[in-house]
Amino acid sequence: MADRPSEFALIARYFAPLARDPGALALGDDAALLENYAGTQTVVTTDALVAGVHFLADDPPHLVAQKALRVNLSDLAAKGAAPAGYLLALSLPQDFDAAWVEDFAAGLQEDQQRFGVSLLGGDTTATPGPLTLAITALGRVPQGRMLQRRGARPDDLVFVSGSIGDAGAGLAVLQGKLKAAEHAQYLIGRTRLPTPRLDLGTALHGVATASLDVSDGLLADLGHIAEVSQVRITVESERVPLSPAFRATCGETPAAIVHAATAGDDYEIAFTAPSEAAAQEAGKHGGVAVSRIGRVEAGQGVALLGADGHEIPVARAGFSHF
Amino acid sequence: MADRPSEFALIARYFAPLARDPGALALGDDAALLENYAGTQTVVTTDALVAGVHFLADDPPHLVAQKALRVNLSDLAAKGAAPAGYLLALSLPQDFDAAWVEDFAAGLQEDQQRFGVSLLGGDTTATPGPLTLAITALGRVPQGRMLQRRGARPDDLVFVSGSIGDAGAGLAVLQGKLKAAEHAQYLIGRTRLPTPRLDLGTALHGVATASLDVSDGLLADLGHIAEVSQVRITVESERVPLSPAFRATCGETPAAIVHAATAGDDYEIAFTAPSEAAAQEAGKHGGVAVSRIGRVEAGQGVALLGADGHEIPVARAGFSHF
Repeated sequence: MADRPSEFALIARYFAPLARDPGALALGDDAALLENYAGTQTVVTTDALVAGVHFLADDPPHLVAQKALRVNLSDLAAKGAAPAGYLLALSLPQDFDAAWVEDFAAGLQEDQQRFGVSLLGGDTTATPGPLTLAITALGRVPQGRMLQRRGARPDDLVFVSGSIGDAGAGLAVLQGKLKAAEHAQYLIGRTRLPTPRLDLGTALHGVATASLDVSDGLLADLGHIAEVSQVRITVESERVPLSPAFRATCGETPAAIVHAATAGDDYEIAFTAPSEAAAQEAGKHGGVAVSRIGRVEAGQGVALLGADGHEIPVARAGFSHF
Repeated sequence: MADRPSEFALIARYFAPLARDPGALALGDDAALLENYAGTQTVVTTDALVAGVHFLADDPPHLVAQKALRVNLSDLAAKGAAPAGYLLALSLPQDFDAAWVEDFAAGLQEDQQRFGVSLLGGDTTATPGPLTLAITALGRVPQGRMLQRRGARPDDLVFVSGSIGDAGAGLAVLQGKLKAAEHAQYLIGRTRLPTPRLDLGTALHGVATASLDVSDGLLADLGHIAEVSQVRITVESERVPLSPAFRATCGETPAAIVHAATAGDDYEIAFTAPSEAAAQEAGKHGGVAVSRIGRVEAGQGVALLGADGHEIPVARAGFSHF
């Protein structure tokens, strides 16, 4: 108990050094201050993570921190926003370990430099339950240019960045349900440390008609676009981009593709756009491969089509907590 | 289990109706959009609340919701910001009761109308622990005019709005530690439902040199101003504003005043200003009494002075979670 720092000491020691932005007021105030640049709008998103639900209590703390930050940055990326900063609400168990917090903060420090963001503010409380954290990320988009789920139109094409299914396979490896030999490290890395596609997001202004990041599962998330845009989306199963590690570990059978397209946690950007050339150009600017995987039609819902053009039945399109 | 709605159903049924602002995109997107009005800055603050720590599991859910929202609006008020909206990250126990969520959302609905704010976005997750929520509130201030903890200067006077100690007494009544007879309802109301002093906050532009809301305890919070502003603050104990209910229940002995000034959770605005007339005028605009309680001097720390001018020893200036 004696070496457990107080709430204020914790903030001063581990979190104040993360508050690089002048608007964070060195975490010495009740609120943070953000500049409102002319011709921009503010984009804001929040995600909560609970130990035992979203990560394991014995996961390396710096990776927990980085994933928490990155899933929020991924939301900003999918909206075409440039990140401005983030807030952290941290509820710590009474018996928390100062070394855990130190490593957690070190992870944030690393990613702040990597992605050019600063902690702006937060709140630290005790909890009798598992460690829980909520990150709220703020970004900016040019006025009227936020990429939304709404906006997909019939005849648009459907694209996704990077590869799909790695994170789901990596989680299965961590859970001992899948053996991946030399591919284990890559797949686990993909589930623990998603890469927010920030440069792709800003390159999609004027290109994408609708966009989101793949968290619930590729098909479930395209279903969100279909629902809000009031269109139907078809995905050609053999076009779903699978990494060499995924193919080597899970194969590329229809069942494996269904798993990839429903497992979620990919944090790639799925978007619709009328022009394949423009989508590929955005991928080049964004430094990530962009694959055309399907098309938008009149109608509703999402269908995964086999090589023969018939719909592959999917029992469960994506993840829900309840 | 059968009548427990899914994460998506929960959001659609209870929270989407709260998303009145067009920038909330009806909660149908990954992020919310906020206008950046010319000549303004964005102010942002977050607070986490945990069942069993910040409220009791059997507290009325609409009051839990309203307190969670109001403590954040209180932070905006103390910074002189006009509220623009808020995000909610809600972690629900697996066995949560839909009626609880319904009443919680009804509480938010009521306060949204009362304070003119809208839910902008959020996240709903499961937790194996106690119900946990984090609210992030966003507001706007005229460029360069945010009230900060920094800024108090020697010879400034110290003020506080409303009355101090009611919330602490109300909590003691709830805990069965204090009998309050006909004053119980008022005192309990003050601990359950703080009043964010939004109109006072915006009236303090150009008046206050430093400002915050009283959450940790009057003396602890003035200590924050003293520390960041690098000044000393003295408070005259007999000037600490006590409500008739507090006086009738706890008396007005030095011990009672120390309790009032350290119990916290008041969510009044404490501020420093050079002019008493201007401070009183701001109180009139804000629709709340403003009391001069002390002064700012060169030096450091906070002292509570008795009627004889001697310092009253205070064992514990305010609340810390650890």
